[in-house]
Amino acid sequence: MTRVYNFSAGPAILPEPVLKKAASELPEYGSTGMSVMEMSHRSKVYQEIFDRAETGLRGLLNIPSNYHVLFLQGGAHLQFDMVPLNLFAKNKKCDMIHTGTWTKRAKDAAEKFGTVNLVASSEDKNFSYIPKTDPSKFSADADYFYICSNNTIEGTRYAEFPDTGNVPLIADMSSEILSTPLDVNRFGLIFAGAQKNVGPAGVTIAIIRDELAGHALSVTPTMLDYRVHIKERSMYNTPPTYGIYMAMLVFDWIKEQGGLAAMEEKNKKKAAILYNFLDSSSLFKGTAAREDRSIMNIPFLTGSDELDSEFIKSAEKQGLLNLAGHRSVGGMRASIYNAMPSEGVSRLVDFMKKFETEHK
Amino acid sequence: MTRVYNFSAGPAILPEPVLKKAASELPEYGSTGMSVMEMSHRSKVYQEIFDRAETGLRGLLNIPSNYHVLFLQGGAHLQFDMVPLNLFAKNKKCDMIHTGTWTKRAKDAAEKFGTVNLVASSEDKNFSYIPKTDPSKFSADADYFYICSNNTIEGTRYAEFPDTGNVPLIADMSSEILSTPLDVNRFGLIFAGAQKNVGPAGVTIAIIRDELAGHALSVTPTMLDYRVHIKERSMYNTPPTYGIYMAMLVFDWIKEQGGLAAMEEKNKKKAAILYNFLDSSSLFKGTAAREDRSIMNIPFLTGSDELDSEFIKSAEKQGLLNLAGHRSVGGMRASIYNAMPSEGVSRLVDFMKKFETEHK
Repeated sequence: MTRVYNFSAGPAILPEPVLKKAASELPEYGSTGMSVMEMSHRSKVYQEIFDRAETGLRGLLNIPSNYHVLFLQGGAHLQFDMVPLNLFAKNKKCDMIHTGTWTKRAKDAAEKFGTVNLVASSEDKNFSYIPKTDPSKFSADADYFYICSNNTIEGTRYAEFPDTGNVPLIADMSSEILSTPLDVNRFGLIFAGAQKNVGPAGVTIAIIRDELAGHALSVTPTMLDYRVHIKERSMYNTPPTYGIYMAMLVFDWIKEQGGLAAMEEKNKKKAAILYNFLDSSSLFKGTAAREDRSIMNIPFLTGSDELDSEFIKSAEKQGLLNLAGHRSVGGMRASIYNAMPSEGVSRLVDFMKKFETEHK
Repeated sequence: MTRVYNFSAGPAILPEPVLKKAASELPEYGSTGMSVMEMSHRSKVYQEIFDRAETGLRGLLNIPSNYHVLFLQGGAHLQFDMVPLNLFAKNKKCDMIHTGTWTKRAKDAAEKFGTVNLVASSEDKNFSYIPKTDPSKFSADADYFYICSNNTIEGTRYAEFPDTGNVPLIADMSSEILSTPLDVNRFGLIFAGAQKNVGPAGVTIAIIRDELAGHALSVTPTMLDYRVHIKERSMYNTPPTYGIYMAMLVFDWIKEQGGLAAMEEKNKKKAAILYNFLDSSSLFKGTAAREDRSIMNIPFLTGSDELDSEFIKSAEKQGLLNLAGHRSVGGMRASIYNAMPSEGVSRLVDFMKKFETEHK
């Protein structure tokens, strides 16, 4: 096979060794006589896979013991509903920094159940930066403080997280989880859809501090109550068993790569290859503010829709796929998650250079 | 490999040719240069897979055009929440026939949002039968009428569905969907977790008549509103892309087997092998009422917990796995879904005969 370089924002590229291992184990896992997909979630052999996934994630992120790790379904979108339903426990009010498409969706979902106070927004410049905030203006009576730590579409990320004091900080980390080391203690709840850095779509990770669960609003559907899933260790109902197995393989792979410190170093180097070129290019330019640049999702454009479109098509012929930007930003976007090899980014930059020369 | 016979109630056995095809296509689908797991759900190549899955299911079940087919997440359990939230549209009241563990969960979930009127229950005999009902006693003002068409744990199924007149009939068909032909027109909404007859855990099928969507209660979380998913053809958010691909392969396989009529014939023959033996055995006996017997899930016991336990252990050594019954029924349970070959059931019965002789 000729493997392409897949710059999709998600579902996204997975590590090649993980895919090979999964393929070899698909018809039969070990000598169990069956596929992981066929295993009862209550069986001993599957429980071992599940435990290894949880242990793997806990190890990579150094998750403290007062945090629960949940493997759920429904993606970040279901978390947009679960967060307010579970955390609007006292004043039905939260603070939020508005940084793009995903905080908009989170805001709309939360407003069904309480008040969302936007302490800052970067909507004035098409969400191309992370707004600076003044902690003295945060609401002391907010039930929680909500951010999207890496904005997949807009290509921005927090260089520093806001200091929210006693108000629990909640972060949608879908598109950057496991890309860098993280101090989980800074957060009340972290969630992430798997389909970027973790595994196939259909698994959602939630890491929640124990004291935050168990106060859900009375209108909370049973399946949307974190406490229900905590009590049964994600097995209140059948979890997405195969997706969790894939996540386990990815966690193993990250550990083999040297863990999150090594991952971060690699990711920064990869991003620098593209950013350095963008900063020197006469044709292409990055759209995100320099100090807030994501190292996972890098949007850029030429300034001409026609040229952008030509570039995307030509790149595809070179095996550089899914480079079209989101319609709200336009142009191009290269998502370079953990699994994207450095050569993929180099190949992209080489092609951009060639394209630039041809279009001078 | 030595493939075992896996009698798990779900996640469950999948067709061997499907697993082989999935394994061969896992690293690269066609000549796309990537795995299905890595494909953007917005890409053309993935849309083709998605469309083939929907077309396949529509073809097998002859789904009329005024019904939407949704591929969701969260399993039947999330449907226990979604059904009342979406369908308690007028009187916040439903009728239900109570036939076991899963109607109990559905009842508990629905009672958060309205009134559940049990028109009949088989709780008096540990749910070992499907209660007969008198349509004149059904509530004319019910928003819907709810049943579980096949009771996975108790091994019962409806030989005939209740006639609910103008009140939409809603059925949890998780453990029997695609095992027999079905007149979808009889139902307002059918749902099923995939992990029995459809594919891996993490995909949920909902087949809903158009007019029933769009009347969700105001407290309905965005992601739990059928209309939201209908509008975006299951792509309001990232769907469980790989699970849907697996379902597509299973639909293809069922079609190759001759469709649902052929499937039913095969399933009836398989079930008869086991039931005929149970009816003649001096040691083992089936627990479900004869006229309500499921052809998917067959619980049986010896009457002695010790002997049951010995049987389960000995069977395991013969490659006959996951035969332990659910704790609420005890004894054994053989789940013999579409993918279970006839030889699996014969092997089980041969072993039961041997065990019976040895324990006379």
